[in-house]
Amino acid sequence: TKHYNIAVLAGDGIGPEVMAEAVKVLTAVADKCGFSVNLNTALVGGAAIDASGEPLPAATLALCKTSDAILFGSVGGPKWTGLAPDQQPERGSLLPLRKTFDLFCNLRPGHIYPEFADLSPLHPRISSKGMNILCVRELTGGIYFGEKGRTSTDAFDTQRYSITEIERIARVAFEAAIKRNNKVTSIDKANVLQTSVLWRETVQRVAQHYPSVTLEHMYIDNAAMQLIRSPQQFDVLLCDNLFGDILSDEIAAIAGSLGLLPSASLNGSGFGLYEPAGGSAPDIAGKGIANPIAQILSAALMLRFSFGQEQAAQLIEQAVQQCLSQRIVTPDIEPNSSYNTVAVGDAVVAAI
Amino acid sequence: TKHYNIAVLAGDGIGPEVMAEAVKVLTAVADKCGFSVNLNTALVGGAAIDASGEPLPAATLALCKTSDAILFGSVGGPKWTGLAPDQQPERGSLLPLRKTFDLFCNLRPGHIYPEFADLSPLHPRISSKGMNILCVRELTGGIYFGEKGRTSTDAFDTQRYSITEIERIARVAFEAAIKRNNKVTSIDKANVLQTSVLWRETVQRVAQHYPSVTLEHMYIDNAAMQLIRSPQQFDVLLCDNLFGDILSDEIAAIAGSLGLLPSASLNGSGFGLYEPAGGSAPDIAGKGIANPIAQILSAALMLRFSFGQEQAAQLIEQAVQQCLSQRIVTPDIEPNSSYNTVAVGDAVVAAI
Ligand SMILES: CC(C)[C@H](C(=O)O)[C@@H](O)C(=O)O
Ligand SMILES: CC(C)[C@H](C(=O)O)[C@@H](O)C(=O)O
Repeated sequence: TKHYNIAVLAGDGIGPEVMAEAVKVLTAVADKCGFSVNLNTALVGGAAIDASGEPLPAATLALCKTSDAILFGSVGGPKWTGLAPDQQPERGSLLPLRKTFDLFCNLRPGHIYPEFADLSPLHPRISSKGMNILCVRELTGGIYFGEKGRTSTDAFDTQRYSITEIERIARVAFEAAIKRNNKVTSIDKANVLQTSVLWRETVQRVAQHYPSVTLEHMYIDNAAMQLIRSPQQFDVLLCDNLFGDILSDEIAAIAGSLGLLPSASLNGSGFGLYEPAGGSAPDIAGKGIANPIAQILSAALMLRFSFGQEQAAQLIEQAVQQCLSQRIVTPDIEPNSSYNTVAVGDAVVAAI
Repeated sequence: TKHYNIAVLAGDGIGPEVMAEAVKVLTAVADKCGFSVNLNTALVGGAAIDASGEPLPAATLALCKTSDAILFGSVGGPKWTGLAPDQQPERGSLLPLRKTFDLFCNLRPGHIYPEFADLSPLHPRISSKGMNILCVRELTGGIYFGEKGRTSTDAFDTQRYSITEIERIARVAFEAAIKRNNKVTSIDKANVLQTSVLWRETVQRVAQHYPSVTLEHMYIDNAAMQLIRSPQQFDVLLCDNLFGDILSDEIAAIAGSLGLLPSASLNGSGFGLYEPAGGSAPDIAGKGIANPIAQILSAALMLRFSFGQEQAAQLIEQAVQQCLSQRIVTPDIEPNSSYNTVAVGDAVVAAI
């Protein structure tokens, strides 16, 4: 029987609470599908800073290196906001993990669920048409990792992209589009940036290998506008690191259901980091009311992308869908709901 | 009597149609308020490319240099999209104008008008609370104008900001906040960018001279989200060039009424370029149905910021408000409206 080593980094705030539910679900689905999971926990983020002074301790990184995938909770909170940028929980853990494991590809689905269309902050005349976007974001290049510096009078950052970097993320977008609605919208600012001109040309060239897919180019400013006006026009959104950071959060806001949105960050050999799109939500941490669905769906993405356990992934997704249809959801989704974090996790397990 | 020389650059698409209305309104208000305007037209954008091969001909630039302000229409269209980036109508005219005249400060108000809240793509539970944001965008620095280049394998762009550049735009934001609701939200990505760290520190220091104003810092990704969730939390938004480009268009989308939104781009000596927030709308050009209000309100901003004619500016704004209240608007605002571009312009003149 197959055996998977999973690094479980729950982090701060609601991280541990929602992670406990994802672990329950993972164990249940492994039993059912005949594989086994070996779950090893380690500290990350603020919890790691408190224990060892660093957001990503060597022991945590070592565990990740001997694991088949990383299941990540969420990090950060008011306690650590005064630290220097690269010592902060979010940046100090996520950026080095992305770079160390070459997690160049970030996938973030954004849905308006018909049952919960009213969660969307958009007008019903728009949200009723639905939204089903996959945001494909380049995650290890661009202005995040270019040369940067500072003098007594000014500061600079460099955005750099190579053709190779653009090609590999573009391929992911087109491959995804083939399995979805055959449309890729590539985001850039080619009227201003040289990196965007290269981005546009390269994406155009990659597109020639995918004749069934319609490719559209859109400026970032126009995209920020169009997502609000008619999100249903999009299928796969292909973005560089910075534009993807902005638009994926805009999409999450439009969906209105941050607690339901998972994400996957992958490299070229199937290794990945899986985490909810939302943050550590310190305001509700410890109350037992956090929504565990995004963390549970992140585990499903791990089964699909890192372990090739498609059937197990679908089992989880169907179980989640069943709970949603029965309105077994936490109060962020339905204000008067009496289901808490554990109850929702239990219901997903029961449905599996 | 005061006398003002205005460079009138109508541009492409609906530009000439809406400009004609703004010119009528300007002439009317000048008569009424006892100053005189000398309006000189010149080619810009695609129209200039067709006539002379360049989006910003020397003669046009020369006219701007001998004028007291520039009233700009809109540029661009499908005919010219195949050109190299710096030959394109938009970029090839606006960026050199901004740089030549040191127009470092872009002001873009974004409103949800109570009478037309339903134009907003947001859910009524949000749009009914209103929105009244002034976006203050740095316009001559950052990644737009930093060193950029390209090799056979990659490309780069540089974002650079000096303390001096940040200070001068920050001061504009705080001065504006004092006359509004005393809140500035400064946008950055200080967890990733060195320029953002400098931005945050500098804005913080400038804020000390404005003790009555509340300063808040927000990451760009979170801002893209918060604008959709609760736009009423914002008063003045302070942004660098790139983030301001994105968020000002997101705000325009949220307002839902692009045809009503003017903008001003100013330097330190009162010179400015005034233009509608929307584009050249080639799809409706020549039909006489384009909304002239954004162009008319841009003229009002010119009277206020470049000429100090506050009373004349308010006269225009009140006349526009009166037309809106009487629903004398083009079909983009009210689909069944029978008022066309000229009729709305006439109504504004009549109200003055
Ligand atoms: C914490 C931060 C560095 C990170 C990013 O900007 O990539 C976060 O916003 C994200 O999107 O995962
Ligand atoms: C045309 C383009 C270069 C310009 C910009 O990005 O500044 C436009 O989008 C704007 O906002 O005025």
